[in-house]
Amino acid sequence: MEWVVILAGGSGTRFWPLSSPRRPKQLLPLAGEIPTAVAAVEAIESLVPRERIIVVTGAELAGPLGEAMGLPAANFLIEPRAASTAPALVWATLEAKRRDPAACVLSMHADWHLGDGFAFRRTAAFALETAQRHDRLVTVGVIPTRPETGYGYIVPGDELVPGVRAVARFTEKPDLTTVHQLLAEGALWNSGLFAWTADRLVKEVRAHAPELREALPLLERGDVVGFFRAVTPVAIDVAVFERSAHVATIPGPFPWDDIGTWEALTRVREADAHGNVLVGPVHAVDSANNVAWSEGVPIVLSGVKDLVVVHANGRILVLARDHAGDMKRTLEALPPNVRDLP
Amino acid sequence: MEWVVILAGGSGTRFWPLSSPRRPKQLLPLAGEIPTAVAAVEAIESLVPRERIIVVTGAELAGPLGEAMGLPAANFLIEPRAASTAPALVWATLEAKRRDPAACVLSMHADWHLGDGFAFRRTAAFALETAQRHDRLVTVGVIPTRPETGYGYIVPGDELVPGVRAVARFTEKPDLTTVHQLLAEGALWNSGLFAWTADRLVKEVRAHAPELREALPLLERGDVVGFFRAVTPVAIDVAVFERSAHVATIPGPFPWDDIGTWEALTRVREADAHGNVLVGPVHAVDSANNVAWSEGVPIVLSGVKDLVVVHANGRILVLARDHAGDMKRTLEALPPNVRDLP
Repeated sequence: MEWVVILAGGSGTRFWPLSSPRRPKQLLPLAGEIPTAVAAVEAIESLVPRERIIVVTGAELAGPLGEAMGLPAANFLIEPRAASTAPALVWATLEAKRRDPAACVLSMHADWHLGDGFAFRRTAAFALETAQRHDRLVTVGVIPTRPETGYGYIVPGDELVPGVRAVARFTEKPDLTTVHQLLAEGALWNSGLFAWTADRLVKEVRAHAPELREALPLLERGDVVGFFRAVTPVAIDVAVFERSAHVATIPGPFPWDDIGTWEALTRVREADAHGNVLVGPVHAVDSANNVAWSEGVPIVLSGVKDLVVVHANGRILVLARDHAGDMKRTLEALPPNVRDLP
Repeated sequence: MEWVVILAGGSGTRFWPLSSPRRPKQLLPLAGEIPTAVAAVEAIESLVPRERIIVVTGAELAGPLGEAMGLPAANFLIEPRAASTAPALVWATLEAKRRDPAACVLSMHADWHLGDGFAFRRTAAFALETAQRHDRLVTVGVIPTRPETGYGYIVPGDELVPGVRAVARFTEKPDLTTVHQLLAEGALWNSGLFAWTADRLVKEVRAHAPELREALPLLERGDVVGFFRAVTPVAIDVAVFERSAHVATIPGPFPWDDIGTWEALTRVREADAHGNVLVGPVHAVDSANNVAWSEGVPIVLSGVKDLVVVHANGRILVLARDHAGDMKRTLEALPPNVRDLP
């Protein structure tokens, strides 16, 4: 049967000071009225019942996520440590297989904004069908809407069957010149929306992923802590997709955003007539193209443009939009008693 | 004897949201550790004892100013209404004359930053001496330090005695081209630091100020409310200085700033190595030439320049520095429940 694995880890720094370790971006209503983690369940539950939705996350987040997402406690897998995506997805896939030997898994992330639920579900269903029918690791290639240098790209290869192509190559975070070449070639965004049967994933891990291979028996014996201690952290893209011959891609014709920075709010939220995205009691006077978020204290913008202004958790951030991609640098420059949220 | 009149009215909007009607800029430590109203008393009290310092202000401010300035309650004159500077100064001068028939009055404002107390006191003493010895209305011409279009200018005329000149003309708020011409001519800022004997001021008001003349008997009978109701609001510059033949000017060789906008803090406070003036818990990362003020909540600036950022009284303001001169426009655009401070 079909299963969904939702990756929901995250350190919560990119949306500082709104996000925090206990309330990272997937628990924030960044794109609308509900947190993206809740939206993820809503997006997928008509395709796969809640009992077959597994969430992988860290110890601190399991409680808040469980409450928000409304899934059975047994469906939350707590990673003993963060080790990139491959160990988490292999574990979750084996857990699905333990409960359902014929499990076919769709992987997604808890922090996505999905602009068209219908197209998303249709694509997800097709990905699961393709994974089973053609016994391939399937990656959905989201149709790009901008020359983004922060994403990985899929260059599709030959058509295998109608709507399904092989992958000619993957390119991770290319520079802008390369991005434009890739877009001209018809490359797609490697979003992390994958599908595979449990059997196929295990075969490919054994064949291609030395980072995980030796540790697999630990996992099969139920020794999760031992497995996570033994693996080398590695992304699923690297561990299997870039190495396997059993890969296919299908196009994802829906708006998709991983809401990676404050800047992303300009894409996933409605702006006013001057391009301002204002959430909470924010008043813009002679101001354009700003993102502002207040949890209660009124913010007044006057004569400013291209800023991110946030008041949350007892901190005020005033950030240039073109600086929003490097929040880490900002946080590293702060004294711990300012950086660490109450 | 010598008396000082300190004008201390003000609506408290220019430093919103830090300033408020009950705590306008003269009660804020804008330029340093103490409010300018307190600094004004400290600047002048070695020249004139506190008993001879009179403060003119509005009903709402008398209490807070009295507490801050430490002057006798009888020395606070409460204007029944704001009517520009001439009615206030005429009233205060007659009050000084009532207590001391030979009163000679120095007028100053409670919101000034005076950068050199010694030079200020020397100048103030010389202004008082000149007013008495030569029986003139004396205006101190502050030596300009920038081409400011927001001030009035004094063009000095012939030398009357060493260090004292007649006034060739006054020019109020000239445009920038005119300012440069004025500076080339040696024009001075008409700061509002004046001196006169009570007798001379009354003579000049009777001779030249129809806005006040008819109402003077009311004031002489002690009917302050009637006086303020009867006068036409007018500045002392217009009422007497621009019309009288008994005017003189002396130079004011001290740093002087009326701290008219948030922008002014860059002149009266020390900046960091990147030109940021930061008051309270403010952290600047890759940011330059900003003014930021927090009363407690940490503010983080990242990648921004030429901004004013303030958190005070439950409001957050993010203002372009080149917009700081028009705070009125910003406040008019706000809903009353945001504009009006708690």
